[in-house]
Amino acid sequence: MSELKGARIIVAGGGIGGAANALALARKGADVTLFERAAEFGEVGAGLQIGPHGSRILKEWGIFDEVIAKGVLPKNLVFRDAITAEVLTKVDLGREYQQRYGGVYFVVHRSDLHSALVSAARRAGATLVNDATVTDVVTEGDLAHVTLADGSVHSADVVLGMDGLHSVLRPKLHDDKPVGSGYVAFRGTIPMEEAGLEEELEDVVGYIGPRCHFIQYPLRSGAMLNQVAVFQSPAFLRGEEMWGSAEELLPAYDHCHETVRSALKHMWTDRWWPMFDRDPVDNWIDGRMILLGDAAHPPLQYLASGAVMALEDAKCLSDYAAEDLRGDTANWPQILRDVNTERAPRCNRILTTGRMWGDLWHLDGAGREARNELFRTRDTSSYKYTDWLWGYDSARNRDGLALSH
Amino acid sequence: MSELKGARIIVAGGGIGGAANALALARKGADVTLFERAAEFGEVGAGLQIGPHGSRILKEWGIFDEVIAKGVLPKNLVFRDAITAEVLTKVDLGREYQQRYGGVYFVVHRSDLHSALVSAARRAGATLVNDATVTDVVTEGDLAHVTLADGSVHSADVVLGMDGLHSVLRPKLHDDKPVGSGYVAFRGTIPMEEAGLEEELEDVVGYIGPRCHFIQYPLRSGAMLNQVAVFQSPAFLRGEEMWGSAEELLPAYDHCHETVRSALKHMWTDRWWPMFDRDPVDNWIDGRMILLGDAAHPPLQYLASGAVMALEDAKCLSDYAAEDLRGDTANWPQILRDVNTERAPRCNRILTTGRMWGDLWHLDGAGREARNELFRTRDTSSYKYTDWLWGYDSARNRDGLALSH
Repeated sequence: MSELKGARIIVAGGGIGGAANALALARKGADVTLFERAAEFGEVGAGLQIGPHGSRILKEWGIFDEVIAKGVLPKNLVFRDAITAEVLTKVDLGREYQQRYGGVYFVVHRSDLHSALVSAARRAGATLVNDATVTDVVTEGDLAHVTLADGSVHSADVVLGMDGLHSVLRPKLHDDKPVGSGYVAFRGTIPMEEAGLEEELEDVVGYIGPRCHFIQYPLRSGAMLNQVAVFQSPAFLRGEEMWGSAEELLPAYDHCHETVRSALKHMWTDRWWPMFDRDPVDNWIDGRMILLGDAAHPPLQYLASGAVMALEDAKCLSDYAAEDLRGDTANWPQILRDVNTERAPRCNRILTTGRMWGDLWHLDGAGREARNELFRTRDTSSYKYTDWLWGYDSARNRDGLALSH
Repeated sequence: MSELKGARIIVAGGGIGGAANALALARKGADVTLFERAAEFGEVGAGLQIGPHGSRILKEWGIFDEVIAKGVLPKNLVFRDAITAEVLTKVDLGREYQQRYGGVYFVVHRSDLHSALVSAARRAGATLVNDATVTDVVTEGDLAHVTLADGSVHSADVVLGMDGLHSVLRPKLHDDKPVGSGYVAFRGTIPMEEAGLEEELEDVVGYIGPRCHFIQYPLRSGAMLNQVAVFQSPAFLRGEEMWGSAEELLPAYDHCHETVRSALKHMWTDRWWPMFDRDPVDNWIDGRMILLGDAAHPPLQYLASGAVMALEDAKCLSDYAAEDLRGDTANWPQILRDVNTERAPRCNRILTTGRMWGDLWHLDGAGREARNELFRTRDTSSYKYTDWLWGYDSARNRDGLALSH
């Protein structure tokens, strides 16, 4: 494909979102350069959940088979009460689900997805550059000029600001700061045989409880167990600037079921992730630069859609540009506006719903009782709560997916 | 009936519970004397909701028609969100409900129910004495001796300690104190035509919201509107000993729907009721004295079962005594134990569930969202949440009511 032949695009940031955008644009013939400040491409972290809103896009880009070969297709999303371990509800991820949403729900190691995107972007012709820190982007006429930390300046028709949660480009549009959730994540992956699970783990299981939750799912074809422990940091509540520490981990689960508490010994204790998001903003555009990915809309992780939103951004931008550019780079401002208009409501809904979803998981007392009973009694044949999330499509003049049931 | 002929019983306290017990025992032939400290029998307050668990008993005692003539049969219990006024769920109180629970759900002025019980108790032969404050009850052998404030001593086979929430007899068994809920009730009754309601009010309507709720229902054949405003007192949260005041009323509903806020002008502001209950206790017996009614199990009002529990106490005690006494007053200790054993789990469940139900009404944030969605989506043809409350029967060897559906 070569709809974007001649379009020069710089991507500032080489995480999952930057790599995805480089791939999507290069696939359509654009001249893409990606600058990443790290000396090597890579992803820290552990497992990542990708819903059908993401897997559909990977399939379109032709890298789904490569990614899924390293991933796992869980059978269900299972919610358990963290105090009693009672199963509250399940989402069956089988054939009916996959047909409804046009894709599978899978889990994969972050680094496996990232390296597949990086490789595919390079195969598609994108230039990916390491050790290159973008410090500024300035628009002049129809060009955006990117300044790197080494002093060099690079011009393009459009720049994608994709430098993540702590973006240095976002302050050109907004003077906000990341918002601390007070919750800190500990992660850990271990060989499955060391986990000592009583039954084979074929699901993504989330234990949800007062002020904490705990997630388990298999990775790497079931050879590994991925675990995530997330809890409210007492240090945060005390108003301390540095919050979250290994000493806080075990006591945070004192009120939880033995199944959860005994699994904590497998968590890494030399790294942790205080969790931040940002308040939603409507404008992502500064001249010929558009913020995308976490720089534009970093969510809390509760809807497992942070990485997927960046994939959606990439599909939307590359589709709209291919439809409208037609060799005329003067169309870029309208294309960016259309992308912003399409994507901001979608992503901001995920941000605000994600915060609410976290609150729902961590309820105590009567709120927890109401949540548990709502989960127990919900109509599991209905998709009414999730169609907006997993059935999203950025196509113009869309009727949406054929979400009949 | 005269199964209890010769049995001498003193009831300490002449509220709804005391009058009900005097009636139930006198109907079966007991020699009942009731001492009430107030100069006249009467009830402060306003409306009272009586479920089928209570109306069945009034029917058995032959005073249902007299009471209901002054009451109203609401068509539904309606729950609305206090912020949006959205109808969340209804309980249809019509024919199917009445058949299932063997009685109606009705509302009546407290004083109307109370005076019907007092009159019926007198007609049944009970002696009701005013200006008589019980200060102590001491068991000696097979007799209980009641001391009044005037120094006189009165003997009986059994004494019912029914002197309410602030019981002076309960400390003989337990050194606990009433537990402040932090919520204060304001009440008000006005002629219906002054209320300015848009539609005729045929239901008991409860607006439930963060830190407050508001109840409306018709009284006196629909000629009066009864309203109850209950909210969390800021003075209580500040730790002040006296909490709840008229100045707190309006600001407590600032976040609520206009429908609720505009109704507050009809509340009495010269009286209010800080709401207390007590922690559940298992033992109600001290020798030949048994605590019943609010002295034994004062609830928060959320399940509208405080008065009904006292009616249930009266039915249970009079039934068990009639079955077992058989002219032998030596059977009293076992009868009291059986009543205690039957009634304490029942009443304590209402106490603890009442607290939880209040918490559920007053949720904010994600808890409120979960509660609202649970209410919206509940199966309104199911009675699974309420059979235990409204279907209760104290009969021995019971199979329960025929609660099939």
